[in-house]
Amino acid sequence: MEDIKENLIPNLHFAENDEEELAEEIGLPRRSTIPSLLQRNSQINLLEQIDDKVHQNAMNEIRRRQGTVRFASTKTTRQDKARPPDDQTPFGESLMVLEFGESAPFEAIQWIMEKIRGRRVDGGLELLVRKEPLSKDSQTIIFHISATHMKLLEIADDMGFMKRTKTGIIRNFNVACLDEFFYDEGMALEDILTPADRQIIIKHALESIKAADDEHRIPGTKIILYHGQSIIQAAQSAELISNLYSLHDKRTLKELRHRWIKPTRVQPIDEIRDYFGESVGMYFSFLGFYTYALVVPTVFGFLQLGLSEETETVPFFCVFYVVWMKVFLELWKRKSSSHAYRWGTITMTNLDEPRPGYYGKLARDPITGKWTPQYPKWKTYVQMYCVTAPIILLCMGIAAFVTIFQFYVEAYLAELFGPDAYILYLPSVVNAIYIAVSTLAYDRLATYLTDKENHRTQSQYERHRVNKLIVLEFVNNFLCLFYIAFILQDMKMLKTQLMMQLIVLQFLQNVFENLYPYLKKKVGLKIVRLFVKSNYEKLKEAHESYDEMGLRSLDDDDPRVIQNRKETILEEYNTYDDYLELYIQFGYVVLFSSVAPLTAFWAILNNVIEIRLDAYKLCSFFKRPFARRTKNIGAWQLAFETLAVISILTNCGILYLSPHMRELGAGFTRESYTLTFLVIEHVLLGLTWFIYKAIPDTPHWVRVALAKAEHESRQALKREVLQEKVQQQNIVRWR
Amino acid sequence: MEDIKENLIPNLHFAENDEEELAEEIGLPRRSTIPSLLQRNSQINLLEQIDDKVHQNAMNEIRRRQGTVRFASTKTTRQDKARPPDDQTPFGESLMVLEFGESAPFEAIQWIMEKIRGRRVDGGLELLVRKEPLSKDSQTIIFHISATHMKLLEIADDMGFMKRTKTGIIRNFNVACLDEFFYDEGMALEDILTPADRQIIIKHALESIKAADDEHRIPGTKIILYHGQSIIQAAQSAELISNLYSLHDKRTLKELRHRWIKPTRVQPIDEIRDYFGESVGMYFSFLGFYTYALVVPTVFGFLQLGLSEETETVPFFCVFYVVWMKVFLELWKRKSSSHAYRWGTITMTNLDEPRPGYYGKLARDPITGKWTPQYPKWKTYVQMYCVTAPIILLCMGIAAFVTIFQFYVEAYLAELFGPDAYILYLPSVVNAIYIAVSTLAYDRLATYLTDKENHRTQSQYERHRVNKLIVLEFVNNFLCLFYIAFILQDMKMLKTQLMMQLIVLQFLQNVFENLYPYLKKKVGLKIVRLFVKSNYEKLKEAHESYDEMGLRSLDDDDPRVIQNRKETILEEYNTYDDYLELYIQFGYVVLFSSVAPLTAFWAILNNVIEIRLDAYKLCSFFKRPFARRTKNIGAWQLAFETLAVISILTNCGILYLSPHMRELGAGFTRESYTLTFLVIEHVLLGLTWFIYKAIPDTPHWVRVALAKAEHESRQALKREVLQEKVQQQNIVRWR
Repeated sequence: MEDIKENLIPNLHFAENDEEELAEEIGLPRRSTIPSLLQRNSQINLLEQIDDKVHQNAMNEIRRRQGTVRFASTKTTRQDKARPPDDQTPFGESLMVLEFGESAPFEAIQWIMEKIRGRRVDGGLELLVRKEPLSKDSQTIIFHISATHMKLLEIADDMGFMKRTKTGIIRNFNVACLDEFFYDEGMALEDILTPADRQIIIKHALESIKAADDEHRIPGTKIILYHGQSIIQAAQSAELISNLYSLHDKRTLKELRHRWIKPTRVQPIDEIRDYFGESVGMYFSFLGFYTYALVVPTVFGFLQLGLSEETETVPFFCVFYVVWMKVFLELWKRKSSSHAYRWGTITMTNLDEPRPGYYGKLARDPITGKWTPQYPKWKTYVQMYCVTAPIILLCMGIAAFVTIFQFYVEAYLAELFGPDAYILYLPSVVNAIYIAVSTLAYDRLATYLTDKENHRTQSQYERHRVNKLIVLEFVNNFLCLFYIAFILQDMKMLKTQLMMQLIVLQFLQNVFENLYPYLKKKVGLKIVRLFVKSNYEKLKEAHESYDEMGLRSLDDDDPRVIQNRKETILEEYNTYDDYLELYIQFGYVVLFSSVAPLTAFWAILNNVIEIRLDAYKLCSFFKRPFARRTKNIGAWQLAFETLAVISILTNCGILYLSPHMRELGAGFTRESYTLTFLVIEHVLLGLTWFIYKAIPDTPHWVRVALAKAEHESRQALKREVLQEKVQQQNIVRWR
Repeated sequence: MEDIKENLIPNLHFAENDEEELAEEIGLPRRSTIPSLLQRNSQINLLEQIDDKVHQNAMNEIRRRQGTVRFASTKTTRQDKARPPDDQTPFGESLMVLEFGESAPFEAIQWIMEKIRGRRVDGGLELLVRKEPLSKDSQTIIFHISATHMKLLEIADDMGFMKRTKTGIIRNFNVACLDEFFYDEGMALEDILTPADRQIIIKHALESIKAADDEHRIPGTKIILYHGQSIIQAAQSAELISNLYSLHDKRTLKELRHRWIKPTRVQPIDEIRDYFGESVGMYFSFLGFYTYALVVPTVFGFLQLGLSEETETVPFFCVFYVVWMKVFLELWKRKSSSHAYRWGTITMTNLDEPRPGYYGKLARDPITGKWTPQYPKWKTYVQMYCVTAPIILLCMGIAAFVTIFQFYVEAYLAELFGPDAYILYLPSVVNAIYIAVSTLAYDRLATYLTDKENHRTQSQYERHRVNKLIVLEFVNNFLCLFYIAFILQDMKMLKTQLMMQLIVLQFLQNVFENLYPYLKKKVGLKIVRLFVKSNYEKLKEAHESYDEMGLRSLDDDDPRVIQNRKETILEEYNTYDDYLELYIQFGYVVLFSSVAPLTAFWAILNNVIEIRLDAYKLCSFFKRPFARRTKNIGAWQLAFETLAVISILTNCGILYLSPHMRELGAGFTRESYTLTFLVIEHVLLGLTWFIYKAIPDTPHWVRVALAKAEHESRQALKREVLQEKVQQQNIVRWR
């Protein structure tokens, strides 16, 4: 330990009179103190290097290998200060991998890397960069990006992260009072930010490199920049940057996987969130909560089955179902907001910092006073209602036509070829192909349309994108069942179709969603190598000129380089598919529960397996996904709620049509029979609405905690004003 | 001007070394400065006395009359400091009148007055008190209560008032930086608080006199106090205090009335709010907004009439109606939240300071740390769902029974006595009497039940109380129409009944609601004098002992005394009746709009008159009502929204039953005819829901302004922490 400190000291710039303080700091325990932080120098972070236990061993190893030469060469002189900071700082965890396109010109790469490495005064980001050494297989130039812990914390402060303090209250993170945020005894500096936070921060930092007034294009390319545009984003969409992703933190991941995939233990939601970010954490928490909630309709289902399926009791079960659905969805809102509170995302609003893809005129933000793009809201509304809505309606119409046409064709073919001909499967197959193709097309369409709408925050963007997809998927997945239930009125067929779709499709989906990334991991690299030729010779020259820029390489056998070669071809993960699967399953469970009471049982069975399988696949076969901060499950909440309301209509409709009910209602006139169902339906709708109103969305303790935090900061404002006045007064008195 | 200042100086306690500052301050312009405020002494407020322009003339007058004697007698010595502050301070505006019961014992009165006048160190409030002189008619002892402006501002600060600052942002009022809150050039100290604010503050102050640990009863009485109970409230409910109200600010009121009752001008909503408080301001703003909104259905109504009432166009009008209703209600929410923002009430929550009647165990508030009563929420829920709900349902049942029974009796009597006998009116008359009696009973019942529920804040309390009444009034007012429409299916009768109720009842109501308070004002005092005998002799002795306590009297011809004698018998105003009137009117307009399209026209006619008539009556015939802070129209929003939803059902139902529609639908089978209406109804319900989601409740600018205020206080917290650290560091360095 001691020798590391000694080795480190020459790497630091010290003001002449700071020596005493330095000695004091080195003598300090792991917990950092404040004075040094206040006069912090972005270029040097002694504390971090001492505190940074996780990487110390790795660093140590690297340093030992590089020997004293490196330290001698980087001995600092006053001149060195003009050079980018990463020359002097050891390179820690690789937080982001940046891969340039094959044809990326040297000039552009150099310009972008200067932006990333450069000093703040020159408009740079002061991040740490290392290039990956060329190998015989190299096709492109790859950079690893990292940052010092202090740098990350500074950006976190700037981004308005909320973190837990010693008092237990979650408050805006403040780098000036770091010690407030060590809420636990054994915490080290790097424990404040979770792995997901670090990834979000570095991504945000990269995306916040904005084109200046006089930068009209990326040098060496034809990529046009407008003032305030995110340079990295422009480069990505022009494919100058071909890939931007991050490597797994293997140790944390291993620990997490170990805890997570054991079927007997509860999911470690907080750890999942720490590593994969809030959006993935939210998904798995929802999956778990939903699976538990399914126990209730499963019990109902068996009871209903026990009491024989078609008796007078069915309407009572309907009432239970409605109450269950709504209570489950409301309780989930409460659960998600307590997650959001603990994870510090509950105060996110549409007025927060815009997402990087948001464009508009640069203007001062009315809240923070920062320069941000501003885009008139009415344009978004015009786009939504005049362009998006008609297109989505048209797509729905086409999908509905295809689905229903299939039945007519089937009937026609049955007439032509008899009811047992194989050709009768043709329409179903065509429909299945249509669905598969359209799903892909929808995805692109939704992204395109939502991009055009230009929503301000990432959450809004995601919500609107997913909303479009949900509507389209609803038609694809459920319309067929509606047709069978209400037009054909064939309950046997409905039940068969339902069970088939639920069990077979979900099983197949589970297999495929794991098999594909698994195969990609196992044989992907080999296949890629077969088809792609190396650019080694072409890249070699450029590579050497980076060395001259002072951009150092990692070693050939550096663990990060080896890891990257493995992970670069992995599949990318997205919660959308998993949510969609749950959504469709929930639809199968609730829409026709009066016909097929056991769907909940099959769903529970599927989900218990799904949880651990998803956990396994996410920890094993996927690239590290980009963490996304979120305070709820976004569009899915509304989607599930809508299904719940629609299920009231469908179940009432099915009961109304069921011959058994008609028998029971034989004593009524036709009119009062209809009226009874109408009243029941409206009472159930009213009940839904009542439950919605009666259960508050946020638990009481969360509201108290938020109010307390707000009260504290208001009090601070008061005290500040008071203090200023006292000072003014003192000044007056001294005069 | 100069002589007043000179006169005032002997009234003030000065610390020996404050003389220089004093001189400086007297030389200052009207705008107050800060140093003196910081070291403010609650007993003296020089600034206020100099700034207080409005009352200066009146004060001057009084002082001149009392001559030098008074000033000589109050010349301050050190001993005087132990006496209540109001001895030395001129008594300004009478903010509250406190009338004790006839049999109130001297001891109790003395004790309570000591609490109000006493110094803070003795647990007193340091308010200013004068007693009203005895006259030959006196029945009770009456006190006037006032406070210095600084005292009011201090309490406002404590209560967390939100006020506009120079920057235009609404922020928590802070007495330490008063000058921040002079947002306008010509503002004086008393302009910061509106008349309504002053009233609210003084009421809050009086109600916040809490029983201490060792005070188990009010001396001289049997009124038991528990620790932390509001003493004034206990005395009021035991009728020890028979009356607590405030006098009109005649000058402000006159100005307001002058501007308000002119039919050609828009209502001065902000001025109404300044004088009558947020709840009355909100009511009149709603009334105005609703009246404007009624123009749309009026136009529809004439169009519908022009196109002949019973054509195919009616269903289209239904769609327009639904869109109009929902858009109107959503836009009102936006308008009300922009009011609430400007009036500084938008941040009110259920976690705010509890209302005075709230009881529970004393404990530290988790947010502010103040001692407040805490009552478990589950008890409230149990009371609501297990006691209140069944009782209300029972009442609804009885009311429904009475309403429907009336028709049966009517039919029976018609059979017995023929269709033209006068006795046929009997059931209607009985029903009318039942409604009149039950309305009074409901009011008491709702208050009783809501008291038992023990809601924390005044807004919650009001909302729950009004909710109960709305449900009951719904049955009383609309069930009869429903019965005619859907059971008797007699559209002619429905139309007659509707028009009768709308026009005749509203007219009668307008007459009565003005006539009664008018009569009370004109002849009330005379009648009272006829029946009540004076207690002059009895009170005389006690009255003199108050003089000995140092509790001075007002003059016999003091304008406040004369005003009080006039206002004490006036009727008390409450927005409930006015809202209820609008609610019932809205019901008549929307529930059966397809039958009687011109209701909106009659409603508009009524409201245009109503606005100015309400204004006139409120400014002329009523006691000054207690202002109430509120951020919306409370339970009424939901009540109107519910009516809007119900109106979809009723109009669809009426169209479904209408013979003309049946003719049009003759081509359909019975089943698809029904289905068509069902689909239309659900589409309309869906539309309502869509509009609800699509229009945000709070305008964008308000959200931005709130976010900005929050951002500012968060930044202050950050800076505070930073400053502390710097100071710590400095201390370390100095060592």
